[in-house]
Parts: sequence; C-alpha cells; structure tokens
Amino acid sequence: MTKPLEPTPSAYDDQNVFARVLRKEIPADVVFENEGALAFKDIAPQAPVHVLVIPKGPYNALTTFLTEASPQEITFFWQAIHETIALFSLDKGLRLIINDGHDGGQEVPHVHAHILGGRHLGPLLSDPA
Amino acid sequence: MTKPLEPTPSAYDDQNVFARVLRKEIPADVVFENEGALAFKDIAPQAPVHVLVIPKGPYNALTTFLTEASPQEITFFWQAIHETIALFSLDKGLRLIINDGHDGGQEVPHVHAHILGGRHLGPLLSDPA
Repeated sequence: MTKPLEPTPSAYDDQNVFARVLRKEIPADVVFENEGALAFKDIAPQAPVHVLVIPKGPYNALTTFLTEASPQEITFFWQAIHETIALFSLDKGLRLIINDGHDGGQEVPHVHAHILGGRHLGPLLSDPA
Repeated sequence: MTKPLEPTPSAYDDQNVFARVLRKEIPADVVFENEGALAFKDIAPQAPVHVLVIPKGPYNALTTFLTEASPQEITFFWQAIHETIALFSLDKGLRLIINDGHDGGQEVPHVHAHILGGRHLGPLLSDPA
C-alpha cells in the first residue's frame, strides 16, 4: 500500500463549526455582517469583548485566504474588522489575533480574527521563550 | 491653571522608534518592503520567526490606521503581511498579532503587526480569565 497523500493546505472542511454558523445550522450572536464577512461573539470569551470575524468564503486559514481570496473579499474582511472594533467601546485598546495552523494554535479550520478587549490582555505570548 | 488637554487618539509621535526606522535613522533587518509598508525582524524575538510589518504612513494604532488610511495604504499593508509570511517556512502555522493601545499592550505608537512562527505559540492569551 502506498502512503495516503497529505491533504492539501487549502482543503476546506465544510462541516467545521464556522461553516455551519455561516449556513445558519448553528446559532451565533452576530454583531456585524457585510457582503463578504460575518462577526459574532466567541462562545467561550476570554475577555469582556471577544468577537470573531470570518470571511464568508471557504478559506481554512489565513495563508490560504491571503493567497486565494479576491481583493474584494479581503477588503470586506478588513472592513468587517474595522466596523466590529468601532461597535465596542475599546478606547483603552484591543488585541487582534489570527492563528494559523498547528503552531498558531488554530482551533477551527476556517480563517478567523479574534478581537479582544475590555481589559488588559497581558503579554504578547504566554511563553516568550 | 486649566488641566492640559489629553492628546487626541490620532496624535502621532514622529520620534517613535518605528518612525526613526522608516527614516533610516535606526538600522533594521528589513525582510520585505513595498510602496506602503515595511517588514523587519523584531530586535527582541519571542519565537524563531518574529517579524514586524508596519505601514509607512504616520498611524499611531490599528484603529487610527483603519479609520484614516486610504484603501491603497491598507492594501499595501496586508500585501506586505502576505508576502512576509510567504518568505518564511511557516508550513506548521503562525500567529498574527496587532496590539492597540493600553489594553492591547502596544509598546511602540506606530501600528505594527507581529508575525510569529517557528514553534508552537501557546494559548491565545496568557491569562484567559
């Protein structure tokens, strides 16, 4: 038997939880939506404000999104990030995090930006080794 | 005496270290540059790959940048992030972090994206309270 091929980096699992949120199979607390992106509250918030912003297209990770998405899709995504930040009272600051793949600790294979705020968010990394 | 006015959020300190890098008053290990953005290695890396990407325009923070920059400047910035990620062997993943203001722990008042990789980067936040 030959070893099975590794999945390509851009393989997209359309049963991932955010794909199901986009199809409205799973409810979400949506705070902003435009033609190309959706923003909703994280179900396990790690700060007083913890919102996720996702593009509507089927992109498993940041690298895939930046490589394969159209300029318009990319614009919708960053515009949604901008609008979402503006919705909350984040005058004292915020942190934007996008995890990609294993090393990033990405948990859901659909690219998503975490917008965190409402408290001091600690150091850049927990283990700055 | 009246209390001095607080600086406006968009006030830009042109003596900040990244402004001085852009003017080449301070050396930097540049890895990528386009018309609107510059990417260079962090001088105190917290991971095997730790690169900063900054727009060339005078924006003190992410919120200011998203509000005041032109669509073209925003495109150059994300394009530089994309190209910088592609320069390194980050097949195992990466983390993109943009800190804004006090709560984000932003240290230099010129908007910058951290691109981190080359090892597992730990949990999203060090204190997920």
